[in-house]
Amino acid sequence: MAKAMFGVIQDDLVALEKELLQAVISPIPLITEIGTHLVQSGGKRLRPALYFLAARSGPQFDRAYAMPLAIAIEVIHMASLVHDDVIDEAGTRRGTATANSKWGNQLAILSGDYLFAHAFSLVASNHYEEGIALRLSELVCGLSSGEIIQDASAYQAARSMPDYYRRIEQKTADFLALCCEMGALVSKADDRISKALYTYGHSIGMAFQITDDLLDVMAEAAKIGKPAGNDIRQGIVTLPVIRALDTSPDRAELMDIVTNPEMTDAMVARALAIVRASDGIVFAQAQADEFLQLAKRVLPAGLPTEAEQAFLAAADFIGRREF
Amino acid sequence: MAKAMFGVIQDDLVALEKELLQAVISPIPLITEIGTHLVQSGGKRLRPALYFLAARSGPQFDRAYAMPLAIAIEVIHMASLVHDDVIDEAGTRRGTATANSKWGNQLAILSGDYLFAHAFSLVASNHYEEGIALRLSELVCGLSSGEIIQDASAYQAARSMPDYYRRIEQKTADFLALCCEMGALVSKADDRISKALYTYGHSIGMAFQITDDLLDVMAEAAKIGKPAGNDIRQGIVTLPVIRALDTSPDRAELMDIVTNPEMTDAMVARALAIVRASDGIVFAQAQADEFLQLAKRVLPAGLPTEAEQAFLAAADFIGRREF
Repeated sequence: MAKAMFGVIQDDLVALEKELLQAVISPIPLITEIGTHLVQSGGKRLRPALYFLAARSGPQFDRAYAMPLAIAIEVIHMASLVHDDVIDEAGTRRGTATANSKWGNQLAILSGDYLFAHAFSLVASNHYEEGIALRLSELVCGLSSGEIIQDASAYQAARSMPDYYRRIEQKTADFLALCCEMGALVSKADDRISKALYTYGHSIGMAFQITDDLLDVMAEAAKIGKPAGNDIRQGIVTLPVIRALDTSPDRAELMDIVTNPEMTDAMVARALAIVRASDGIVFAQAQADEFLQLAKRVLPAGLPTEAEQAFLAAADFIGRREF
Repeated sequence: MAKAMFGVIQDDLVALEKELLQAVISPIPLITEIGTHLVQSGGKRLRPALYFLAARSGPQFDRAYAMPLAIAIEVIHMASLVHDDVIDEAGTRRGTATANSKWGNQLAILSGDYLFAHAFSLVASNHYEEGIALRLSELVCGLSSGEIIQDASAYQAARSMPDYYRRIEQKTADFLALCCEMGALVSKADDRISKALYTYGHSIGMAFQITDDLLDVMAEAAKIGKPAGNDIRQGIVTLPVIRALDTSPDRAELMDIVTNPEMTDAMVARALAIVRASDGIVFAQAQADEFLQLAKRVLPAGLPTEAEQAFLAAADFIGRREF
């Protein structure tokens, strides 16, 4: 992640990697093996990074106290990706074999269950502020609900903007918002700061997911570790596609493709071409930018300078990212 | 369940059914629909029943306070069955269509995730005794670990008795033990009582799972709502089979069948015939009886008479059950 963002929390993230590897050790060798593979497959660690940044904004940062919740956050994220990959029948993620492709769906489902429960046990055994366990369990309810809606409405091109925004909120923004808020809570930041950081996290979460969806339309397979047009292929319409369905001269053809569960690779390529030729990409970029500007504006006064700079850098980083 | 066991907690279980239907209501209609189907598909409600029985053994029973944890217990059980059915590709359970057969694997996986998380949110929002959330999350880790071991060792006829006992402990006995202990905790029973009830629950849990495994070898499809020999077909060796692999004159043939992932229906029928002709069934019944006797012996002195009678009846019920 961007150097400017790393600075303040670099040591925290180094410690996190070690602790993550510890956290997946189980008396059952197969669980250790799967967990280690998942940790070593990498990831941006965006959620614990935001959590640590927020934690360093409060008056009482204590890494040893904050760490188990950081682990729980990343383990919940890992568990939900493991189940997503089963559901999407994904063979690779970030260029590495998925758990389902290495160990089969059955073990991947059970490993995801194990990781979710393990995350909750980390929270329960560390005496955090009241409400944290509740917020985290409600978050997982929201993550599953969002996926259920997405799965149930696949190939229906439910193309209202509010539906889209609600979907990416449940998928990403609520999670990033909660990471920022929980960081503030564990370091005893005051209410004004924790609420503002929640809004900050929500805004960059919206921008992050719009950017993610844009990359799926724009990027080369090599850069994002999966084929472009993956969302379209799965019947999921994202912001640039929704916009193109409104404004493109070829919108009827685009609609036929994205609502066809039997679409071929050639049809996916054609859909991508239609979206790229439309104003969908510029429109989605503008929306992401607006969320990033909002994120910067809501940053509360009185943050430690280093933390404030890092929050600003994180927003810039998300605007520029290409992976 | 047996009338004698029902008496004390009949009203609790009637209230439970209503609350379970409430608990699966979500703003997302599809989640409500799947959850309602799962609740209405029934089940013995053995776990909440034991929990309520134990709760009525302490000095401070309060149904309104105890109820959300009872719901969480049954919802965790439901969630684990939903994922088990995906993993086993089961079409029916208790004679009713499974979630995966009605809505597909993807929605079944996500519904299970939602239900697990919802159970934890019920616990987190109701201010239970310290340690309850931790014990429950560790329980779910244990449930998943047990399934992972079972899945990874399928068709290997890992036939040591200790392995089998450890497996059914993680699958069933730990859960029933925890239900009894948590019931004692929420009604402020003293430490001696909660520990004894934990052991009681563990013992009847072992007996319950041995009986369940026996039924798979003995029963007709109609009675248990799934075909006999299901475990053998999935490469899982249970106590009567393990015994037959030691003592049957046809043990070599039995071993060939149970370690063959490609076994035919005729081979399953032959394996069942070998086990039924061996002393495996009598042996397993004797083991189950021993656990039930142990359960009765460890019941603590000083329980309310009605509760004590119900605990004894529950043990007898498990010894006699045919479904």
